[in-house]
Amino acid sequence: MSNPEEIISEIIRQIKPVDKRWAERAKAHLAQQARPIGSLGRLEELAIKIVAIQKSLEPRLDRRVVLVMAGDHGVVEEGVSAFSQEVTAQMVANFVKQGASINVLANQVNARVIVVDLGVAADLSGQAGVVHKKVDRGTRNFTQGPAMNRDQALQSIINGIEVFQETDRAIGIHILLTGDMGIGNTTPSSAVIAAASGYLASEVVGRGTGIDDAGLRRKIAAVEKGLRHNQPHSKDPIDILTKVGGFELGGLCGAILAAAAKGVPMLVDGFISTASLVLAYLFQERVLDYVFASHLSNEQGHQRALEYLRLQPILDLGLRLGEGTGAALALPVIDAALRVFREVAPFDAARVTVGQEKDRPRII
Amino acid sequence: MSNPEEIISEIIRQIKPVDKRWAERAKAHLAQQARPIGSLGRLEELAIKIVAIQKSLEPRLDRRVVLVMAGDHGVVEEGVSAFSQEVTAQMVANFVKQGASINVLANQVNARVIVVDLGVAADLSGQAGVVHKKVDRGTRNFTQGPAMNRDQALQSIINGIEVFQETDRAIGIHILLTGDMGIGNTTPSSAVIAAASGYLASEVVGRGTGIDDAGLRRKIAAVEKGLRHNQPHSKDPIDILTKVGGFELGGLCGAILAAAAKGVPMLVDGFISTASLVLAYLFQERVLDYVFASHLSNEQGHQRALEYLRLQPILDLGLRLGEGTGAALALPVIDAALRVFREVAPFDAARVTVGQEKDRPRII
Repeated sequence: MSNPEEIISEIIRQIKPVDKRWAERAKAHLAQQARPIGSLGRLEELAIKIVAIQKSLEPRLDRRVVLVMAGDHGVVEEGVSAFSQEVTAQMVANFVKQGASINVLANQVNARVIVVDLGVAADLSGQAGVVHKKVDRGTRNFTQGPAMNRDQALQSIINGIEVFQETDRAIGIHILLTGDMGIGNTTPSSAVIAAASGYLASEVVGRGTGIDDAGLRRKIAAVEKGLRHNQPHSKDPIDILTKVGGFELGGLCGAILAAAAKGVPMLVDGFISTASLVLAYLFQERVLDYVFASHLSNEQGHQRALEYLRLQPILDLGLRLGEGTGAALALPVIDAALRVFREVAPFDAARVTVGQEKDRPRII
Repeated sequence: MSNPEEIISEIIRQIKPVDKRWAERAKAHLAQQARPIGSLGRLEELAIKIVAIQKSLEPRLDRRVVLVMAGDHGVVEEGVSAFSQEVTAQMVANFVKQGASINVLANQVNARVIVVDLGVAADLSGQAGVVHKKVDRGTRNFTQGPAMNRDQALQSIINGIEVFQETDRAIGIHILLTGDMGIGNTTPSSAVIAAASGYLASEVVGRGTGIDDAGLRRKIAAVEKGLRHNQPHSKDPIDILTKVGGFELGGLCGAILAAAAKGVPMLVDGFISTASLVLAYLFQERVLDYVFASHLSNEQGHQRALEYLRLQPILDLGLRLGEGTGAALALPVIDAALRVFREVAPFDAARVTVGQEKDRPRII
């Protein structure tokens, strides 16, 4: 194992489809619980998916990690964000100080937050508490040429794979939550989704952290220009990442691939994480066997990306923050699903009459 | 205070609108947190509502109770349910044994389950662990005449008020979760919603625990017959409850009124709880100031009832179980909202640059 393309190819080869026999066992287990079949709706579907991934009728998600990957974006020169670029580094410091929304929400669900510098424009090498995987100090403005070179794109994916694997070796991850921080990163995310799906810029660009109408027009124009100028190939994730992506998107793509290869389920956060998932999906569709879409964000492009991936989000709360906040909010629903799976009494133990329930409908 | 109508009237008089100044204070508090304004979407709205109810910038929901009210329904004679009536009493026993879905989900969120017999057809007087507030052993078949008499309707509401007040005196409830158990009770719930809203039976009747097509036709016919035969007055909750309701619906209506009167927020569960809320709303619209709709169930009538009440559910997970399960599942979202409210650092403490965020959008 030496060159980046070989490492990525090997990870992709390790991504196996989940074993459908375990899904059948999970369904059978749920069917004998003292409640109408299918009455817990998506909770049952979530439990079945975890059982199929973990190959166990005693599924556990005790060790949970949020990987928050940070990077900066040259395209902010086009006036596409309501915040200035220095905020990325400031928020990284805020994550380390436990002061951000993701820290609060991760604490609530007992998840550990790991902050990774994939490409923040500032020098963070002296910043304690950050995992240093910087590829470069921010991408270039993709309206003028590619956001990065091909080696950097590969390196960002490799770095993401490494972060997952190093964390997994240290902790043994039961479930991965993805998160992001990067001023301007809804713009490359929109471009990635448009490049892969064929949607127009105007169909996938939204207001991000809250730009005004003029900013929205600039943002659509920047995505259109980036796509027209760079012509990324719709089926080639490395080409898309190189031309209109971002370092944290590459890192998240790598972590998603590595989690799927290891058979670890993951809760993918919002718009930026989903764009990274689109890249991972272009490498290997089977990653979706391991993925839960945590929520539908306020970004219009998010709905389109989820439809493109045929994923149904767990929550719909109008979030538009990133950081992994949607993933942390969705985790209790999966926890509840597993708790029901393990603990609800069977009909016979509860001495509940099932004779009258004719013609029981299918679970999902 | 002696007769039931006076007691109910007094409770209704005690329901005050929430203080909008506290909502403004909550918004101001959220606006200085180190994240874009409004970026946590509905989480912010939920926190603001709790602050307005509790009149405190340090909102707490430590003591949480699920009141599961049980009753039986004469209309099951019409073949409207997939289960037989004895299952109601069996499930009450299962709740006491901690074996049911609501026990599992309530444990996860640290909520105490209190099971109340409002009108189970069996004699449960010897059943330990049940709060005995039985009005009668099941309602009558409302296709043949009123489900109960007016005194019973009033008594069921009084009993619900008492359960809330007695529990509150013992524990000091911070948030009430509503739940129900009663074979056949989606049928009176559909009838109550149709009576109040003017929707047709066919527009509010669903498959409940999972009846087949023939059962669905019988159920629609039963609701139509009940409404035509009894002609409940659309603005009179006592008349609706008497003619096409159920004892547990009356009990839940009473508990909802009593919680609102005491200024206690509540998470209303699914279809049966929402039908009970419709009755409470007909008594006093202001109850909605204290209500969170926990989820959108699979029953088509639920969406219509929520629209009638202009409530937006927190979750949409295809549940159709009742028991309070949807309320227990939604509680972590409110917990998260309060945690964010209390703990996310302000911009200045986080040293995050806000100068570039021009033209900050409104929160909700």
